[in-house]
Amino acid sequence: MKKLINNPSDVVADALRGMAAAHPGLLRIDHENRIVFRGDAPVQGKVGLVSGGGSGHEPMHGGFVGPGMLDAACAGEVFTSPVPDQVLAATQGVDGGAGVLHIVKNYTGDVMNFEMAAEMVTAESGTEVVAVVTDDDVAVQDSLYTAGRRGVGVTVLLEKIAGAAAEQGRPLAEVADLARTVNANGRSMGMALTSCTVPAAGKPTFDLPEGEMEIGVGIHGEPGRRRVPVAPAREIAEMLLEPILADLDFGAGDGVLAFVNGLGGTPLIELYVMYAEVAAILERSGVTVARSLVGSYMTSLEMAGCSVTLLKVDDDLVRLWDAPVRTPGLRWGV
Amino acid sequence: MKKLINNPSDVVADALRGMAAAHPGLLRIDHENRIVFRGDAPVQGKVGLVSGGGSGHEPMHGGFVGPGMLDAACAGEVFTSPVPDQVLAATQGVDGGAGVLHIVKNYTGDVMNFEMAAEMVTAESGTEVVAVVTDDDVAVQDSLYTAGRRGVGVTVLLEKIAGAAAEQGRPLAEVADLARTVNANGRSMGMALTSCTVPAAGKPTFDLPEGEMEIGVGIHGEPGRRRVPVAPAREIAEMLLEPILADLDFGAGDGVLAFVNGLGGTPLIELYVMYAEVAAILERSGVTVARSLVGSYMTSLEMAGCSVTLLKVDDDLVRLWDAPVRTPGLRWGV
Repeated sequence: MKKLINNPSDVVADALRGMAAAHPGLLRIDHENRIVFRGDAPVQGKVGLVSGGGSGHEPMHGGFVGPGMLDAACAGEVFTSPVPDQVLAATQGVDGGAGVLHIVKNYTGDVMNFEMAAEMVTAESGTEVVAVVTDDDVAVQDSLYTAGRRGVGVTVLLEKIAGAAAEQGRPLAEVADLARTVNANGRSMGMALTSCTVPAAGKPTFDLPEGEMEIGVGIHGEPGRRRVPVAPAREIAEMLLEPILADLDFGAGDGVLAFVNGLGGTPLIELYVMYAEVAAILERSGVTVARSLVGSYMTSLEMAGCSVTLLKVDDDLVRLWDAPVRTPGLRWGV
Repeated sequence: MKKLINNPSDVVADALRGMAAAHPGLLRIDHENRIVFRGDAPVQGKVGLVSGGGSGHEPMHGGFVGPGMLDAACAGEVFTSPVPDQVLAATQGVDGGAGVLHIVKNYTGDVMNFEMAAEMVTAESGTEVVAVVTDDDVAVQDSLYTAGRRGVGVTVLLEKIAGAAAEQGRPLAEVADLARTVNANGRSMGMALTSCTVPAAGKPTFDLPEGEMEIGVGIHGEPGRRRVPVAPAREIAEMLLEPILADLDFGAGDGVLAFVNGLGGTPLIELYVMYAEVAAILERSGVTVARSLVGSYMTSLEMAGCSVTLLKVDDDLVRLWDAPVRTPGLRWGV
C-alpha cells in the first residue's frame, strides 16, 4: 500500500489537523468529535446544515463547510458512518434557532445514525431537525450497504443549493423542500478503472484486472452493473449517460447542471476528455447545459474512474447555484 | 494502460474540447493552435500574460486562464513544449498595447521556443515581450530536460500574483520585476509514490517497485535525488522541507505561502495529511504561514505523490494573492 499517511488508524485525525492548519478562521474543527464546523457557527436565525459520512470522499463533506454551504460535517472513519454522538454534537453546534437540516446519503448506517441523532437532539433541546436523504445513483437498486439507490454526486450539488437557500434566510421547511426537489431531479452513475485501498485494510477493496473496468461502481468500491473491457471515453460516457437519460426526462425544462466527477486517482485532463464526450451526447440528445462542474469533488480514496451527474435546474436553482460560496472545496463570488 | 481517453494521440485536443464546453464565455479556445484564451482577450491597456508548456499538468496552465491570472496558455503535446508558432499566436492574441509577459518553466525546449516566439513577435509587430523563467525546484541542479533547476510549483503562485498585478494596471516592467521576485523567493521539492504513463507511450515512464518512493522527482517523472523505502507522511514532509529550508531563509520576513500540491493520482485526504506535517515542521522551524494552498494544481498525469512549495511573501504579495481571480482552476472574490 502506497499512501501519503502516517499510521493507517490516524488518517482521519491527521487529515482534520491538516484542514485546521490550512483553513484557520474559515473552519473550526472539533477534533475530539471529528466535526468540521463553519468558523462562525452557529449563525443566529439561519437554518443550520449538517452533513457527514465516511471519510475517504474528500473534499466531501468537510471541504464543503463554509458560508453558502454546510455549517458542519461529521467525519466517520474511512468508508464508515459517523456515530450518533457526532451528529448530535454537530447539530447542537449549528443550531441558530431556525432548525437544522440533515443531508444524508442513502447508506444504511448513515441513515440510521442521523435518525438516532435527530431523535436525541429533539428530546434534549426541542430543536427541529429535518432529514433529506439523497439516492441519485441509477446503477443499482439495492446494494452492499443500501436499501434502495445509493446517494452519490447529487449530494454535492444539493449541499451547495440548499446552503445558498439557507444563507438567504429561507425557513427550514422551504430549504428541506428544495433539497428534496434537487434529489428528485438528479441522477448519477459512476465507473472505475481501478480499485481503492482502505488504509486499515491495506489491500485493494476489489480486483479489477488490466483491461477491465467496472460500470456502475459505488463510492466504496461496491459492485456495479457489470465488468466490461476498457473502452474509449466516448463509449464510457454513453454507458454512464444512457441509464441516466432513460431514468428521467432531462430534455424537458430549462436545462441541466452537468457534473463530471473524478474518483480521486483520475487526473483533470481525463475528466475534461470525459466532459467533452458528455457535452456532445447531451447536445445530440437535446439536453441544454445550463451550468457545469468538472473536478474531483466526491472521491473514493485513490480510485481511478469518474461519475456523471445530471441535475434538472430551473431559474431558482441556477441562481442558488451561482450564489456566493466560500468553502475549501467550492468557492466563488466571495 | 487504463485511462479515460479516446485515441492516445487525441488526448490534448479532446481535453481542450472539454474545456471549451465546460467554460463558455470565460474561455475562448483556438483549437487549431491549441491555445486557451481568456474570453475577452486582448484586454486593452493591460499587460498580457502568456504561459504554456507540455500538457499533462492540468489545471496548469489552461486552467489558470481568466481575469486576474493568465490571458492565454499554449498547450503542447503531453510533456512536450509548445511550438514557437503557438506562442506567437498566443502573444499576438493577448496584445492589448501594454506589452506581454511570458511565464516560462525552466525546461530547455520551453525556454527556446518561447524565446523564438518573442523574437518573431517583436520583429513582426514591435510588441514588447519580457520573459520570466521559473526555476524553483531544489531537488537537482541540472536534469534530463534542464540546464539549471526545474520550474515547478512556484509557477502556479507566480501566475496568480503577476496576474493580479497586471489586472491592477501595473506596467510590464513592474509586473516582470514582481514575477522575478516571486521566483527568487520560492522553492519547491516533490516526491512520487508511483510513475505516470504518457498516453502515446502506453507504459509507465519509470519503474518504482512496491515499497519504494522517489524523492525529488520531476513533473515528467525525471529522476530525483534518491530512491528510499516508503515512509510515513511526517518523514516525507521532512525530506521535502529540509532541502527547501536549507536553500533560503524562510524564517526572516513576514511569512510564507505554503503550498502542498498533488501530482494527479493522490487524493485530497492524503494532501491534508501532508499539509498537517508541513505546518507542524514550519511551526517548529519558526516560519510563519501567511497563506496556504492544498490541492492538485500542477500534476504529472496520474502520478501518485506530492510536492511542497514555500514562497516568502510580504504585504504586497499577500494582497495580490488575495485579489479576485476567476479561472477554472483557481477562483475567489468573483
